[in-house]
Amino acid sequence: MHQNRLKAVTENMKRQGLPQILVSSTASVYYLTGLWIEPMERLLVLYIRDNGECALFGNALFGLTPGGDVPLYVHTDADDPLHDLVKVVHPGVLGIDKSWASSHLLSLMHQRPDITPKVGSAPVDEARMKKDSQEIEALRSASQINDEVMEASLAAIHDGASEKELAAYVEHQFALHGADRATEGMIVSFGANGADPHHCPDNTLAKSGDSMVFDIYIPINRYWCDMTRTVFFKEADDESRRIYETVRKANLAAEAMIHPGVKMCEIDSTARSIIEDAGYGPYFTHRLGHGLGIDCHEPPDNSAVNQTVAVSGMVFSVEPGIYLPEKIGVRIEDLVLVTEDGCEVLNHYKKDLQIIR
Amino acid sequence: MHQNRLKAVTENMKRQGLPQILVSSTASVYYLTGLWIEPMERLLVLYIRDNGECALFGNALFGLTPGGDVPLYVHTDADDPLHDLVKVVHPGVLGIDKSWASSHLLSLMHQRPDITPKVGSAPVDEARMKKDSQEIEALRSASQINDEVMEASLAAIHDGASEKELAAYVEHQFALHGADRATEGMIVSFGANGADPHHCPDNTLAKSGDSMVFDIYIPINRYWCDMTRTVFFKEADDESRRIYETVRKANLAAEAMIHPGVKMCEIDSTARSIIEDAGYGPYFTHRLGHGLGIDCHEPPDNSAVNQTVAVSGMVFSVEPGIYLPEKIGVRIEDLVLVTEDGCEVLNHYKKDLQIIR
Repeated sequence: MHQNRLKAVTENMKRQGLPQILVSSTASVYYLTGLWIEPMERLLVLYIRDNGECALFGNALFGLTPGGDVPLYVHTDADDPLHDLVKVVHPGVLGIDKSWASSHLLSLMHQRPDITPKVGSAPVDEARMKKDSQEIEALRSASQINDEVMEASLAAIHDGASEKELAAYVEHQFALHGADRATEGMIVSFGANGADPHHCPDNTLAKSGDSMVFDIYIPINRYWCDMTRTVFFKEADDESRRIYETVRKANLAAEAMIHPGVKMCEIDSTARSIIEDAGYGPYFTHRLGHGLGIDCHEPPDNSAVNQTVAVSGMVFSVEPGIYLPEKIGVRIEDLVLVTEDGCEVLNHYKKDLQIIR
Repeated sequence: MHQNRLKAVTENMKRQGLPQILVSSTASVYYLTGLWIEPMERLLVLYIRDNGECALFGNALFGLTPGGDVPLYVHTDADDPLHDLVKVVHPGVLGIDKSWASSHLLSLMHQRPDITPKVGSAPVDEARMKKDSQEIEALRSASQINDEVMEASLAAIHDGASEKELAAYVEHQFALHGADRATEGMIVSFGANGADPHHCPDNTLAKSGDSMVFDIYIPINRYWCDMTRTVFFKEADDESRRIYETVRKANLAAEAMIHPGVKMCEIDSTARSIIEDAGYGPYFTHRLGHGLGIDCHEPPDNSAVNQTVAVSGMVFSVEPGIYLPEKIGVRIEDLVLVTEDGCEVLNHYKKDLQIIR
């Protein structure tokens, strides 16, 4: 167990009135124990009491070995997976991880009607928002690799290349750099396709004048990187250049004002007002960014409605974009780490307007 | 809506005493509606009554458009996602999809205490077990591509290639063949690494005499392929050859006896007894196979404890293996489709012992 992280969690539990919680998400269990287990339909639960007592429940197939600092309860496919857990939890309020499978929750409630289940992910989610030094090092390294892969991938653009081919090239580059696994949906989108921020790479070929959005992200040593750059194929007309420079200005202005004490919604509005002032407000259709760490999306949201105050150790994306339906998409995204007196931008790949000849 | 599939589901609901169910898994919603939606932390629910009435609930970000044959209820991030659903469901027993997020279930129970939630995935899971002609065509096509990718990938083996490099090569080949997305864990394992059936490709290089397990799987047009072949690098000693031929015999014998009416556990035992008779029983450490379709693992389990009887339209894997710790792993896997009078093996890549020079 990472004792410092556990301590942050139990303090949050006390403040939030949760005397006991069940942690079941792969990322949260990893955060606290260092064990990476993807349970699929099987049961994985880390039980935590606000006095610091813990117990880990898992299937024999997970290969868990006793002797660590947490009592271990192992079941097999032939057992009721909740067999041990129902004996260990205490009566009363029990915090439940938000994504725990309903089949397990219903079985627990059936066997232990003296328990009052409540959604209880916040103690861990809030602890995970403030990254410690080990996590920051992992995030820095992952983003450094992302810089290298971006450079190699943009250099691989050629006449006749399709979005799918370049997305596969990006995946391959990450694999050679030791990424943990493939991602499920790298974004490479040309021209009008870029107007859908979540466009899935298809067989489209780039035409002269197209914007080319590369939004590339993957976990490396369990921590995610995530960066977007937009370049232009052969040429860029005046409106494309105006849009690009507006997005770049929004990205830079937001990054320049991040420091401990600023609210997430203020960061969003700094970028958004630049895009609005340029007349493209209706075409910036998503939040400015999202927190990121062991999960690709985690708190804090970098959005217009989030009043959360930035504190040092938070890591999130800054990714303004402009999307003109049927025409063009431009997005520029970096990850930033809030520091004691400002922020550190984790991505270093250049943001000047680039025309790929 | 696929009306024939919906009819199979409502018949199962009546037989199982579930007057209404909530379907939330991406694969099950796709199976019934043809809509592919990955809701992440957001709400996606297809509500079904046993009289065939349906309603679809989803977030505005999913891009759902009204006008289909199912009433649509759209919420935004600013709404309570259950806002409409709690008005539509009827009092009494309500089947809940097994993997539905606990946060949603707890909110539903809080707002509708007159509902009795029960695990209720079986009506859809059982319908999905028997593939219809459209599904069979998709599975056949995906496995045909898998045959081609296997051939290309084995041809790419060279001196100094690492597991990771070849796994990335496999991914790239699938991408060029139009796979839906990257997979999360292709298996390429050399020599002793192969003794772990779920070994994750690392930087290991092949040594002369190593077994090389290629277990490659991916979704193509929403349906999975999944095949394993094991080859040897440069040479194979007598024990390796004996193990290989034992696994091949087990694979072929199991495939030869599959027909409607046979129990899944009988298929497992046909393969298992061949491996036991050769003295390797303790080293075949997993079930013989798993069902597969829109999900990579779905019913029916092809295992020693499953009494389910094969019916035409079922698709599952036949993948016997022998794993000698610290030494070698050999696995040979095909997908099979149960037909009216036997089975069709969906993979055609050869199974003769191959030495890669």
